[in-house]
Amino acid sequence: METEIRQRIRKLREYLLENGIDVFLFPTADYHASEYVAPFFRTREYFCGFTGSAGTLLVSAQEALLWTDGRYFIQAARELEGSGVKLMKMLEPGVPTLMQYLKDNVPEGAVLGFDGRCMTAGKGREFISLAQKCSFSLRTDLDPAEAVWTDRPQMPCSEAFIHHLKYVGESPSDRLARLRKDMTDRGVSTYLDSKLDNIMWLLSLRGADVECNPVVLSHLMVDPDHAHLFVQEKAVTEQVRSYLSGYGVTVHPYDSFDRFLSKYEYKGDVACDPDCVSIYYSGIASAAAEAAGYSAGFCASPIISFKSVKNPTELTNLRDCYRRDSAAVCRFIKWVQEEVRRRGVCAGTEADAAAAKDAAGTSARPLTETAAAACIDSLRAEIPDFQGLSFGTISAYGANAAMMHYQAVPGGSDAVLQPEGMLLVDSGGQYLSGTTDVTRTTALGPVTEQMRRHYTLTAVSNLQLMGAVFMEGCTGAQLDMLARVPMWKQGLDYKCGTGHGIGYFLNVHEAPPTIRWGNTAGQPNRELKPGMIVSDEPGVYLEGQYGIRIETILEVVEHSVTACGHFLAFSPLTLVPFDRDLLEPRWMTEESRELLDAYHARVYEEIAPLLSQEDREWLKVQTAPLS
Amino acid sequence: METEIRQRIRKLREYLLENGIDVFLFPTADYHASEYVAPFFRTREYFCGFTGSAGTLLVSAQEALLWTDGRYFIQAARELEGSGVKLMKMLEPGVPTLMQYLKDNVPEGAVLGFDGRCMTAGKGREFISLAQKCSFSLRTDLDPAEAVWTDRPQMPCSEAFIHHLKYVGESPSDRLARLRKDMTDRGVSTYLDSKLDNIMWLLSLRGADVECNPVVLSHLMVDPDHAHLFVQEKAVTEQVRSYLSGYGVTVHPYDSFDRFLSKYEYKGDVACDPDCVSIYYSGIASAAAEAAGYSAGFCASPIISFKSVKNPTELTNLRDCYRRDSAAVCRFIKWVQEEVRRRGVCAGTEADAAAAKDAAGTSARPLTETAAAACIDSLRAEIPDFQGLSFGTISAYGANAAMMHYQAVPGGSDAVLQPEGMLLVDSGGQYLSGTTDVTRTTALGPVTEQMRRHYTLTAVSNLQLMGAVFMEGCTGAQLDMLARVPMWKQGLDYKCGTGHGIGYFLNVHEAPPTIRWGNTAGQPNRELKPGMIVSDEPGVYLEGQYGIRIETILEVVEHSVTACGHFLAFSPLTLVPFDRDLLEPRWMTEESRELLDAYHARVYEEIAPLLSQEDREWLKVQTAPLS
Repeated sequence: METEIRQRIRKLREYLLENGIDVFLFPTADYHASEYVAPFFRTREYFCGFTGSAGTLLVSAQEALLWTDGRYFIQAARELEGSGVKLMKMLEPGVPTLMQYLKDNVPEGAVLGFDGRCMTAGKGREFISLAQKCSFSLRTDLDPAEAVWTDRPQMPCSEAFIHHLKYVGESPSDRLARLRKDMTDRGVSTYLDSKLDNIMWLLSLRGADVECNPVVLSHLMVDPDHAHLFVQEKAVTEQVRSYLSGYGVTVHPYDSFDRFLSKYEYKGDVACDPDCVSIYYSGIASAAAEAAGYSAGFCASPIISFKSVKNPTELTNLRDCYRRDSAAVCRFIKWVQEEVRRRGVCAGTEADAAAAKDAAGTSARPLTETAAAACIDSLRAEIPDFQGLSFGTISAYGANAAMMHYQAVPGGSDAVLQPEGMLLVDSGGQYLSGTTDVTRTTALGPVTEQMRRHYTLTAVSNLQLMGAVFMEGCTGAQLDMLARVPMWKQGLDYKCGTGHGIGYFLNVHEAPPTIRWGNTAGQPNRELKPGMIVSDEPGVYLEGQYGIRIETILEVVEHSVTACGHFLAFSPLTLVPFDRDLLEPRWMTEESRELLDAYHARVYEEIAPLLSQEDREWLKVQTAPLS
Repeated sequence: METEIRQRIRKLREYLLENGIDVFLFPTADYHASEYVAPFFRTREYFCGFTGSAGTLLVSAQEALLWTDGRYFIQAARELEGSGVKLMKMLEPGVPTLMQYLKDNVPEGAVLGFDGRCMTAGKGREFISLAQKCSFSLRTDLDPAEAVWTDRPQMPCSEAFIHHLKYVGESPSDRLARLRKDMTDRGVSTYLDSKLDNIMWLLSLRGADVECNPVVLSHLMVDPDHAHLFVQEKAVTEQVRSYLSGYGVTVHPYDSFDRFLSKYEYKGDVACDPDCVSIYYSGIASAAAEAAGYSAGFCASPIISFKSVKNPTELTNLRDCYRRDSAAVCRFIKWVQEEVRRRGVCAGTEADAAAAKDAAGTSARPLTETAAAACIDSLRAEIPDFQGLSFGTISAYGANAAMMHYQAVPGGSDAVLQPEGMLLVDSGGQYLSGTTDVTRTTALGPVTEQMRRHYTLTAVSNLQLMGAVFMEGCTGAQLDMLARVPMWKQGLDYKCGTGHGIGYFLNVHEAPPTIRWGNTAGQPNRELKPGMIVSDEPGVYLEGQYGIRIETILEVVEHSVTACGHFLAFSPLTLVPFDRDLLEPRWMTEESRELLDAYHARVYEEIAPLLSQEDREWLKVQTAPLS
């Protein structure tokens, strides 16, 4: 019998044939260059069955190919089984890139299609130049899923709400004024943006259209004296509509953005960030502006740069927010350590556990990774201005933690926590007063000497970066050396950045800043500025053995001005102790021992007042000086 | 009476008037983009009297202005006195850049002149585009000094000699083959180069046309099967001519380069590095190649990149060379410490000293900075393959060492060394087997606690970089953090790069590599590769008080290949102990104490065999473990 995926691809091929398209691409994207996409936009997943967060599907009359990266080789191979879709392992020897494949396989005169709304202008330009070079043509105005995907989920449509000035500290009029000043400086009369967190930030709006990201689907056009917001009808209440109107922002239907762009009476040059607007929308605006005698160009989004520097109100709120969030994490760590030790060695399944209970007469119901995640999630939910998680909690025990993006599934892959080895929990919350993100790795019982060596090394790496003092103008690609070199001296490395920026009640990954030495191609390597917040998350990952990550969120702060210059430093927002059972002071540098003692003293001082007497005593022990 | 400089400028203005030129520029440059220029090329100095190593003079009918940087503000002000030339302090508030000044002051239709042979193509393009923008014209084929400077020094003309294969390890045919392969890969048929060290490297030639730089004035053109070298007639012996002919290199007169370029029968596209060839010569080649239907473009010089990675023969020779050079420096340090202490407190002048001697009956003839420099220079001269100094020895006592480029002058500024405080000596030699560069700062007697703090900090900074292990792909702009952050934590910084590359019996400053975090604009920030050599020279400079610099030359070496990647490290070439009297182990990190002990153990092991029994005992004490 034909599998479901084969059936979908067959229908897709009929559609492509009818529309004269030879090859069609499905990237993993929505119309807003979002990192995570709502179910409505998961066409790539629908047509091949692969559920990972990154990948591009190509379908032609003869072939179906999926490109994805090393994180997903195993999962993709499993999910593609029987689908007839071939896995293209990115960066593996002999595997062509998507671009190379298209160059070699799309014949002259053929038609390559993709939904232009799902492709940024920046990426789209690469396809345009390839098509010119190889003499094939592009078709970007079709979404085959509209015809083929009969039970497609609804487009998400949460209600937009106002993020109050007391949280945000700067009104939309002030933010619009900063944007317009930037436009004037560039000589631009119209600015377009489709990036959801940019639009939310500018207008102090929030919503819930993307899981864990408090945004509403929207596009934006800003003129010297007016702005236009394109959102779904049901997303805006009368209150929000009138709030926006107070700032000179007119609300239009979400799906009228293209018509609006084509009919708008342009009064000057147009600009947008090629990574924030799709090739479809930017193309329409370009054509219309040029027809009116103006030029359309690309620039780095000024909103991205404004948004990355948190203002004093945001910073004050963030510090409070991280204290409350850190207190919840402390309570969780104490709870999980005690629970696991209390329960003792557990059988692998609930049935086994029941049997073990009968035999031993003790309460041995197993605690699993998802149960631990549920505990920390519920502790966060008790915090007054909690709005949801900032990403799905990663609760990974033992060898599972070696997979950086492991997700336990209740009733599925969900390891039982035993009183030995380590548990890695990476979690965060969305609050009206900020977005949090923290990882701690915790010993649940006896650990090997190698685990302690690697944990101690990770701690040194984390602390060397946290303790840096640096001259104004330094970039994260430079400061990354401080975290990396201790690892490198041991022949170790983690295959991810050391740090990412974080939104303010917005996306948990927000660029800039970034702490990342390599693979910076295409990422402008901007300097760190006071008011930026950035994660510090080195780790050791040994496949099949264990994973260690210590993630502390840092605020970039003023340090000093001396005769030699203007110096900045980091101040930790996350205040959760490191694990004493995993630390060996004599393997640490003197400097990192001092840094840890200072950090722990601060943790106790700021977090103890938020804890119960019992939890406070636990914290006292955890944060006692090393010597 | 009219000063000499005013007279020269008056004659220059007459010349400019006769030739219809409104404004003329004199950069500090020869025809080869050299860092140091021979007296013949010092036209800027001739016309304004300023002797510093960097600066640009502008002369118009009304004005004469000299732009120079912070290193030279005091010296320039003194030297320009009475000349009528106005000092333009670069980067000072309110001082326009040269380009800004030209933009604001050269009227439409005016003529701006400079000797196009003294301006690189890269820099020259900026003037061309400014001239277009401001509608003035350029005249680049005149050298007013030819008419005005009657007692101009001869153009230097040393005899070229062959740098033997046993030193170089790779024949000119192999090097030409590598260059031609690169040309083929770029689709280029003709390559031009005027950079002297590039040409010397390629053809294994050396000379003595620039002080401390073993080069002969020359230009080069390479074709797929032939090469053309343009040198002064007297610079090439019959032996060298026939040696070159064996590699398919034809010798032409030095001053026929322009005629040759304009009349040459081009057979394909032409390329040169815009920083290695002047706008004058590259312009002629472009015009001629384009007239023949080919294109002329710019590329990064492949020779610069080849030259930066020393081959196994060069590295073996270098290690020997640095051992011998380091032994000489050790002998010098022991000598100067003992001499100064033996002589005791000296009067400030020879006359005073003679008086003191009479009074005290002791030998108290003062030892000065230049006498110390003469001592180290003569110790180097004893080394068998010594060819000269690689730069003028910097011997700076006390507050003089706070000036990074201080030069003592016998009979002029030449401090007497007293048995207290610190002496900084930065020196190096040219040998057939390499170019050296080393700085050590030495206590001559009692020092303050602050001096010891700053010396210890400089040592930590030096050692943290020396001890780095780093993943393939890292750049010097990243690794600089390791040396800087210890300084920055104390609010200190040194206003220069931490490290520069070094030639092989060539220029002591050779790019790439570089260890420098900021001001990298225009400097391609290339990765460090095994076989590169680079200096590690942090310092503390307190104006009016003292200066500390510790400079150790490092070789980039393979470290390890692990499951996590390919790691590189540094191995010191310079093997001279740090000063025990200035080091306080308890202010060092544990890691830097271990690094210093390991370094000192190596210094003793490799240098002791080259020393006399007495010197060896001294070295034993200097290199004993800290604990």
